[in-house]
Amino acid sequence: MPLSEKAKEFREARERLNEIVLKESSLTIKRFFNLDTQAYSDGALPVKSKELLGLVASLVLRCDDCIMYHLLRCHEEGVTDQEFEETMSIGLIVGGSITIPHIRRAFKEWVDLRDA
Amino acid sequence: MPLSEKAKEFREARERLNEIVLKESSLTIKRFFNLDTQAYSDGALPVKSKELLGLVASLVLRCDDCIMYHLLRCHEEGVTDQEFEETMSIGLIVGGSITIPHIRRAFKEWVDLRDA
Amino acid sequence: MPLSEKAKEFREARERLNEIVLKESSLTIKRFFNLDTQAYSDGALPVKSKELLGLVASLVLRCDDCIMYHLLRCHEEGVTDQEFEETMSIGLIVGGSITIPHIRRAFKEWVDLRDA
Amino acid sequence: MPLSEKAKEFREARERLNEIVLKESSLTIKRFFNLDTQAYSDGALPVKSKELLGLVASLVLRCDDCIMYHLLRCHEEGVTDQEFEETMSIGLIVGGSITIPHIRRAFKEWVDLRDA
Amino acid sequence: MPLSEKAKEFREARERLNEIVLKESSLTIKRFFNLDTQAYSDGALPVKSKELLGLVASLVLRCDDCIMYHLLRCHEEGVTDQEFEETMSIGLIVGGSITIPHIRRAFKEWVDLRDA
Amino acid sequence: MPLSEKAKEFREARERLNEIVLKESSLTIKRFFNLDTQAYSDGALPVKSKELLGLVASLVLRCDDCIMYHLLRCHEEGVTDQEFEETMSIGLIVGGSITIPHIRRAFKEWVDLRDA
Repeated sequence: MPLSEKAKEFREARERLNEIVLKESSLTIKRFFNLDTQAYSDGALPVKSKELLGLVASLVLRCDDCIMYHLLRCHEEGVTDQEFEETMSIGLIVGGSITIPHIRRAFKEWVDLRDA
Repeated sequence: MPLSEKAKEFREARERLNEIVLKESSLTIKRFFNLDTQAYSDGALPVKSKELLGLVASLVLRCDDCIMYHLLRCHEEGVTDQEFEETMSIGLIVGGSITIPHIRRAFKEWVDLRDA
Repeated sequence: MPLSEKAKEFREARERLNEIVLKESSLTIKRFFNLDTQAYSDGALPVKSKELLGLVASLVLRCDDCIMYHLLRCHEEGVTDQEFEETMSIGLIVGGSITIPHIRRAFKEWVDLRDA
Repeated sequence: MPLSEKAKEFREARERLNEIVLKESSLTIKRFFNLDTQAYSDGALPVKSKELLGLVASLVLRCDDCIMYHLLRCHEEGVTDQEFEETMSIGLIVGGSITIPHIRRAFKEWVDLRDA
Repeated sequence: MPLSEKAKEFREARERLNEIVLKESSLTIKRFFNLDTQAYSDGALPVKSKELLGLVASLVLRCDDCIMYHLLRCHEEGVTDQEFEETMSIGLIVGGSITIPHIRRAFKEWVDLRDA
Repeated sequence: MPLSEKAKEFREARERLNEIVLKESSLTIKRFFNLDTQAYSDGALPVKSKELLGLVASLVLRCDDCIMYHLLRCHEEGVTDQEFEETMSIGLIVGGSITIPHIRRAFKEWVDLRDA
């Protein structure tokens, strides 16, 4: 699946820094990273639904890197434009106008992924 | 659908206070309340999925009243124990141990609803 | 100026606990408490405007005790119903639906103060 | 009213991204954007007071883009240096030292606007 | 070590609810609870220092239950009045006046533990 | 003590902006800056312990500039790799995966300081 330039750079930087963290870190951090992966694996809720949960949580907590990560995963899992938009809407209503700068960047990236 | 005692009191207090807010408030607040309702209506994502999004957003933002509201709506929409648990897991991983007091109260209420 | 029962209890508990904090605390905390008072004193902006700033900041950070404190001060400074409502509206738009439980309690207290 | 270079770029980027959001979004997001505008319109509180409320709320929630937006609007509405400084002071006291990086950037921009 | 009444009730309620959570939850939540315990175990930093880290983190995130938990652990680990006060001071400076209601309740509980 | 390039630029920018803030600001902000310094001075807890408290508070509140500042101070105070890692672990557990992007940048900077 083709990625936008920004998405490619994001993924590479993330990999590079994760290597440093895991090299320097103890069991607690390593195990947390494993749990983090497990939490989004297929279960009673399918992976796609879980990525949408991760996306809305990242939006209301206003973390651009986390939004970018889950937005890419949503794109890979086949989330449609309308599903993406409805998830953004709920995040906006719950989190208020303070989320708008993040929503702007998320829609820009979503459109870039679609066009890539 | 039978409610726990706590859930009944929660809903009554919520109604009573909403009446005060709407009586005292201008168009901006009234319109926001309408938007809030619209955001969770059936769309590309079904109501159930949207209530799970509202639940996880409320959990990571750590608002007991908001968690209680979406938890009751999830229960009404037929969310299963396992779906509830997986949503709580994602909220815990994203939001960390600071969410645990809310997770404790949420599971307690979920069990009480199931047993009601 | 007459107070509601809840407002009286709030003020008494606040005084009682502040005494404990100041008795147990060092210069840093004592000086912070002084700065906190100074920040709301009459200046280029009148006291009333500053209390509205304190109110909206408390609302978007979702602290009931802080909302209660500034709401009482706004009432003492002659803030009108409409000014109160417009400040709540801005807090709601900025902070989103997660502020609604606090807005409900704030309007309830505002009405009780007006009727006291 | 002359703008600093940073302010011009900020406004252009904001416009460009808002267009994408509104093109891609449904009624809920569009209506929220309208409500957001309405909340700051002239009422019992004048526009200037409302922009100061928006500024302090953005500061304590620590959103640079939101601070930049309201800071520009405050500048346009004739907020004085002293009024700006007192609003920053209240935000600092309420929100603590974690707001200082945002306060630094806000004062820098305020001075640049004054000198533009 | 004698506990205040409030501390006893807190611990009992915590135990009771933890049982429900662990009974209802999957591996992800159970493993997170284990990691949470591990993170505060003796290491390069002694347990006491780690509990002070947990306390200040809970204070700036403004979670009363988390503050209560770490405050009790600090008391058990022999944290002195002055060490407690200095940790509260740092939390107050970092987190601002919005932490004061939590600081009030924390000092009240600290004094009650000392007197128990 | 040698600094990384990023650390040097960070310190210079911080100094330059602090000068602007202090030139433009009144007593409240100036006094807050003094209190901020005092809170981390040697007391019942040594400076090193206080910088670790500042670091974990900055991490859970997710402020990169504040993390960078305390990370540099920790390095100057002789915090070891393992002490740094255990503090990051506690921040990760308390604050959840939303802190991970900050943890990545913090470990990167820590390694760069060590290698400088």
